Amino acid sequence: MSKFITLEGIDGAGKSTHLGWLASLLRSRGKSVVVTREPGGTRLGEGLRELLLDSDQAMHPETEALLMFAARREHLDKIILPALDRGDWVLSDRFTDASFAYQGGGRGLAMEKLDKLEHWVQGEFQPDLTLYFDVTVELGRQRIDAIKPADRFEAEQDEFFGRVRNAYLERARRFPRRISVIDANQTLEEVKESVEKIILSFC
Amino acid sequence: MSKFITLEGIDGAGKSTHLGWLASLLRSRGKSVVVTREPGGTRLGEGLRELLLDSDQAMHPETEALLMFAARREHLDKIILPALDRGDWVLSDRFTDASFAYQGGGRGLAMEKLDKLEHWVQGEFQPDLTLYFDVTVELGRQRIDAIKPADRFEAEQDEFFGRVRNAYLERARRFPRRISVIDANQTLEEVKESVEKIILSFC
Repeated sequence: MSKFITLEGIDGAGKSTHLGWLASLLRSRGKSVVVTREPGGTRLGEGLRELLLDSDQAMHPETEALLMFAARREHLDKIILPALDRGDWVLSDRFTDASFAYQGGGRGLAMEKLDKLEHWVQGEFQPDLTLYFDVTVELGRQRIDAIKPADRFEAEQDEFFGRVRNAYLERARRFPRRISVIDANQTLEEVKESVEKIILSFC
Repeated sequence: MSKFITLEGIDGAGKSTHLGWLASLLRSRGKSVVVTREPGGTRLGEGLRELLLDSDQAMHPETEALLMFAARREHLDKIILPALDRGDWVLSDRFTDASFAYQGGGRGLAMEKLDKLEHWVQGEFQPDLTLYFDVTVELGRQRIDAIKPADRFEAEQDEFFGRVRNAYLERARRFPRRISVIDANQTLEEVKESVEKIILSFC
């Protein structure tokens, strides 16, 4: 039976690294697997990704949320739901929890407003399983950048990513059955073992 | 005191033609006037307009609605609300009634879903006055194209614009105090007189 699995976490948490071997693991167990990502995954999503980066002035957080959910609606309609209908497993690098973490936690948009938008777009549809890769902001940054002391701009970014992380952890507390928290401060090998254990018990 | 006036109607109804002299009329009466349009009006809106035209496959009507409201959120934040705060009058070529007419009437999206999205983005904010230029689909098309018999594709388009027009008329019945219906099947001069009468009683 098809399953929809999402991977979440701040940059440097390692989710993209683990996505590849996770797809191989599932294929080796006979599953047909579709790997996708947000924002993006569709032509519209890629166009929106460009728009979001190209913006010459700060976008209102509600505008950003509406664009993310527009891309998600298309992603559901063109990629995720057809794959699940065919019986495939779908692995997505980020999904709706990311809107709660980034637009909600990071930019301060009210969670109740995001709840409403989620319901407008998805109804009751949710991932079957979400792997949240939890890493400290400092370790996440170190994994991305060369190791160096944080300047003022990076320190501000750290505050932003701290709020994003807290929002992810809050989601995990709110939906403990769906969201598995993986301690991504461990070594790659240890994280891989944790993920494998969760996935094999889920298959 | 500042006012927010929107102009609505299908293509060929003449609203853009009347927008220019209407701005002049208001300026001649000492108003500071900002003229804008949807989608567009902001850099994001112009980018979204391109995305909407560039699409290689049909977009889900809900995606289209979310994009329109994303552009609208930005339009409100960057253009409309700051102008009203300064005490300017704002004239917009299309606004939220167009989403009800095109995505609702034209594409068949449920009006209750649009009500929810409108409330999410605008709260209770509404135009002070909406001029709806009502024209038959046939006359609208004749004004745009050279006059020729409709082929099959144009006939399909006519059905679409018929649904859009009906949705506009339904909006006008629902909000009779805000929306003034102008018979745009009349000559330009007659329409101009009708508009002038409404605006001067409103100033």
